[in-house]
Amino acid sequence: MTIDTLAIIGVGLLGGSLARAARQRGVARHIVGVEPDEVSARLALSAGLVDELVPEAKADVVVCCAPVDCVAELLLAAAEHGKAGTLLTDVGSTKATIVQAVEKSLPPHVLFAGSHPLAGSEKQGPEHADGRLFESRLVIVTPTETTPRAAVEQVSAFWQALGARVRLMSPEEHDRGVALTSHLPHLIASALAGVLPPSLAELTASGFRDTTRLAASDPRLWTAIALQNRDFLLEALATFAGRIEQFQRALEEKDEGRLFELLAVGCKMRKDVTGAAACGLAALR
Amino acid sequence: MTIDTLAIIGVGLLGGSLARAARQRGVARHIVGVEPDEVSARLALSAGLVDELVPEAKADVVVCCAPVDCVAELLLAAAEHGKAGTLLTDVGSTKATIVQAVEKSLPPHVLFAGSHPLAGSEKQGPEHADGRLFESRLVIVTPTETTPRAAVEQVSAFWQALGARVRLMSPEEHDRGVALTSHLPHLIASALAGVLPPSLAELTASGFRDTTRLAASDPRLWTAIALQNRDFLLEALATFAGRIEQFQRALEEKDEGRLFELLAVGCKMRKDVTGAAACGLAALR
Repeated sequence: MTIDTLAIIGVGLLGGSLARAARQRGVARHIVGVEPDEVSARLALSAGLVDELVPEAKADVVVCCAPVDCVAELLLAAAEHGKAGTLLTDVGSTKATIVQAVEKSLPPHVLFAGSHPLAGSEKQGPEHADGRLFESRLVIVTPTETTPRAAVEQVSAFWQALGARVRLMSPEEHDRGVALTSHLPHLIASALAGVLPPSLAELTASGFRDTTRLAASDPRLWTAIALQNRDFLLEALATFAGRIEQFQRALEEKDEGRLFELLAVGCKMRKDVTGAAACGLAALR
Repeated sequence: MTIDTLAIIGVGLLGGSLARAARQRGVARHIVGVEPDEVSARLALSAGLVDELVPEAKADVVVCCAPVDCVAELLLAAAEHGKAGTLLTDVGSTKATIVQAVEKSLPPHVLFAGSHPLAGSEKQGPEHADGRLFESRLVIVTPTETTPRAAVEQVSAFWQALGARVRLMSPEEHDRGVALTSHLPHLIASALAGVLPPSLAELTASGFRDTTRLAASDPRLWTAIALQNRDFLLEALATFAGRIEQFQRALEEKDEGRLFELLAVGCKMRKDVTGAAACGLAALR
């Protein structure tokens, strides 16, 4: 896949990484960036992430890497000015709201399919751009019943050209899943970090730091994500809060067997997810 | 500080790391291990972590690295067989229960002060021993009103010889603090990992993995820790659950400003703890 001109709207961590990956893999001949933030724009240009900064995303492929509550509007503006056959996608962490808004008003001369690369960082800005960010990572492409097959195929091919793996999912299935696997962990990390009295900072070690890493993410971005995925996220929060209650009850009742079981299930699941040897759940007392 | 014979009770990850650190830094001439688990014992010997495996910890310095619910009994047994002036300590993650039990029955010919190095790993076993595990890490030494000053000074000097920093705290102050900074994160990580349906494993990325890393810890060890620090841990769980409720309420009410504020506080706290630049809390809307 070789794109004549690739436009990236929002050249922050994700947009910058995308630009660098496209450059390194020869996926695009010319890369232009749309970036309202002057500091990020200058950094992206001086680091060679983009060849040029432009006021409007006119290109063969347009990828919107803006905050989720800005994506639909920016993509529709790009669609309006785009030539026939322009391919549009985004990297938003929520999909249903964005895809519905874009597909409802998309002019027929362009192609769009939503996507979400399961890759990122709590860091922000093009100075942290990483050309290998998407390598071997999963990108969820989220067609609806009305998404043209060509859009799905081309967006999938784009991500594969950047080294990613692609999986198709409906926007709703995606949002329900990441509510648990990504949005819930962000809120949990933030809640944990938020209850730490500053005086206890010296008693933290790597465990606290890892568990709260996601809390360092941009609050503005995550407010928008949480609100866009509100219903599924509330379900996930209720499930999690129920589990915390089970820990509380086991502790109140000094129920050693139940406490062990709760911890063993978490241990098994964590090891299954990371592919490590399973915990001795068979040894459940 | 040079110890003639150092005995380590429980040569797992912590005990093994301690042995390796003592060896590398020339802190002990002879290192013996007490290890009931045959596999660990063989590994510790073949890896040269200990010079010898012994049935009873007779030594100048005895460090108990056993699970917290075994520490007091093992230390008291070592005290009984120990020669005059033997220095005893432990690495348990809880302190009040252990220190109280040991000091209550300690024979007068030995010295004891409890300690807790804020270092560790979710990994287990001497095969993960790391001679640099304690380097520059904080070790909390927990004297009571009756702990001899010599015990506190010698235990502190021991940890400093291994490269650690030492801070004194009462056992209760320690337990209240680590309930929030260590024990709570373990339960949260476990609760999060425990509510993940296996079908969603493919949707997890580095965020989920980091937030749940602690869930991979040994459930047996953490059941004992949670029960020994039950009261402070229940307080910490209640505080955290209250914070989760605030997130739920903000989402239910679509209260964007409140959601941003909650996330911004978590972000600021996380960055303060890790020493990174503070989030723009001044930009609170």
